[in-house]
Amino acid sequence: MTPDPAADRRFMAAAIALSERGRGLSTPNPNVGCLIVRDGRVAGRGWTQKGGRPHAEAQALEQAMEQARGATAYVTLEPCFHLSPRGPRCADLIARSGIARVVIALRDPDPRTDGQGAAWLREHGIAVEMGVMEAQARAAMAGFLRRQTLGRPAVTLKLGLSLDGRIALADGSSRWITGPDARAHAHLERARHDAILVGGGTLRADAPRLDVRLAGLEDRSPRRILLSRGDAPEGWERIGRPEDIAALERVDHLLVEGGAGAAAAFLRAGLVDRLLLYRAPILIGEGMAALGEIGLADLADAHGRWVLTDERRLGVDRLEIYAAARGV
Amino acid sequence: MTPDPAADRRFMAAAIALSERGRGLSTPNPNVGCLIVRDGRVAGRGWTQKGGRPHAEAQALEQAMEQARGATAYVTLEPCFHLSPRGPRCADLIARSGIARVVIALRDPDPRTDGQGAAWLREHGIAVEMGVMEAQARAAMAGFLRRQTLGRPAVTLKLGLSLDGRIALADGSSRWITGPDARAHAHLERARHDAILVGGGTLRADAPRLDVRLAGLEDRSPRRILLSRGDAPEGWERIGRPEDIAALERVDHLLVEGGAGAAAAFLRAGLVDRLLLYRAPILIGEGMAALGEIGLADLADAHGRWVLTDERRLGVDRLEIYAAARGV
Repeated sequence: MTPDPAADRRFMAAAIALSERGRGLSTPNPNVGCLIVRDGRVAGRGWTQKGGRPHAEAQALEQAMEQARGATAYVTLEPCFHLSPRGPRCADLIARSGIARVVIALRDPDPRTDGQGAAWLREHGIAVEMGVMEAQARAAMAGFLRRQTLGRPAVTLKLGLSLDGRIALADGSSRWITGPDARAHAHLERARHDAILVGGGTLRADAPRLDVRLAGLEDRSPRRILLSRGDAPEGWERIGRPEDIAALERVDHLLVEGGAGAAAAFLRAGLVDRLLLYRAPILIGEGMAALGEIGLADLADAHGRWVLTDERRLGVDRLEIYAAARGV
Repeated sequence: MTPDPAADRRFMAAAIALSERGRGLSTPNPNVGCLIVRDGRVAGRGWTQKGGRPHAEAQALEQAMEQARGATAYVTLEPCFHLSPRGPRCADLIARSGIARVVIALRDPDPRTDGQGAAWLREHGIAVEMGVMEAQARAAMAGFLRRQTLGRPAVTLKLGLSLDGRIALADGSSRWITGPDARAHAHLERARHDAILVGGGTLRADAPRLDVRLAGLEDRSPRRILLSRGDAPEGWERIGRPEDIAALERVDHLLVEGGAGAAAAFLRAGLVDRLLLYRAPILIGEGMAALGEIGLADLADAHGRWVLTDERRLGVDRLEIYAAARGV
């Protein structure tokens, strides 16, 4: 079983893809992915399930059964070491499974584990490698990491724009700027967040349902949060200021859907980690701007803040994803 | 000399690249490119020179000399057949050169040639092929074609934008939105146009020089045109309405550089053929919009008008080029 770095990266990429399945579902636990591989073949796959249990490793080991013996486990986050009434410690579960080698993307920043999971594995004669595709794993578990390091959810701001940066005509009409493929993708993004937030103006103007209208994913509709000083309608939660997201329980990934005022408030507060720009190949001219005042006094301060991390075509539209340059 | 379609396309692409060198210089003649190839080797290259003479074919034949005998000529536009006091007819020049085969991208829409150049070549026993890489040649000679078919120059609208579609802060400051690579590219685009146009507001606010500030290209600075009802300063020409571009002599390629009012006026008049969007990865929020009122009453009418034809990175910025879907 000679380590093969290229194969390690390939299998870790698969584990990270599995972790994405738990995004928006796994709180209060991180959305971990796990792949168990023996002799180059996948013997088990797991990702943290709804509400956080079972953990990815437990699920993958249960699938692998006897195949775990001598196998390599790829885990996107260091296996947990802390005791919980809700289930077994993954580090211990792995140590007793016969797994020979564990490849980890990211050391767990939770002080109750923070290296102790890996140490436990090594003590039990298991080869451990840490840091494989760490950056990609960080992006997939951004919400958990923001919670751990900043005490707040990871915030994605979504904008559906014309080429000239408009989100509606002057009369407010915005159906449709982007096409069906882009709108379907935006619904998929909703399913990947624990909660969606809009401002009071958008609620009044659009009365958005903010659910996931994709076949088979209707039950993935996230919680709805209103940024407003007024009252929230039935079925909505409310916060008064962007900073209040820290107090939202079980929200690790928050999607801000607009409008221009709410978007600007989050940017002004420095609370946006990721931009989803759905861009339609149209010009609108006079119309509603994507953003209100974000507190920029000098153009020089605008630079170096956003890095393009992904892009794709969605029908005739294009999606660009930017990450805050300060990193996760 | 068996025709080889892949080789034909390759050599025609080179001829089209040559034709781009004359863009913004060759008026009142089209910016044609010509490559003479014998036994797979380039024997002569030419492109229509400043002011329209010599023609591409004449230049390429002069380079090729005796090598023209039995060679293939790749020409982006059908060789001219009409008599001119300014120089020889290219169709006749080629017929007498010993060239064995002529590959043409585009039939000349000028009624004085319009197929007669190709017929003349065939009458002289020369093999003629027409329509190779026609679409690419059309794009390269867009200005000439617009003049022939619509009686006006091809118009490119340039916008330097933030991700949220702003061209300046609310106080008007716009230095700099895009970085040095994007600005250098924009200067290169100036050199590829016969004239540059701005609106009165931009002239007053920015007092733009609108010259080409690239080493070796300073003398390629195009004519400066003001869209305004007022007077034009020394060294500027003036038009009162976008439609007046038809009357601009020797302007086949016009670059509209702003501001929002002039850009909107050209869009409203349906006179923009190409968009150059230089996009910086920054957010501005409240600020100056890229476009004023363009006369859009219904979102449905905005769709299907623009097609992405090219894109590239320019430092941290990105250039997107859109063409009007109605085509050239």
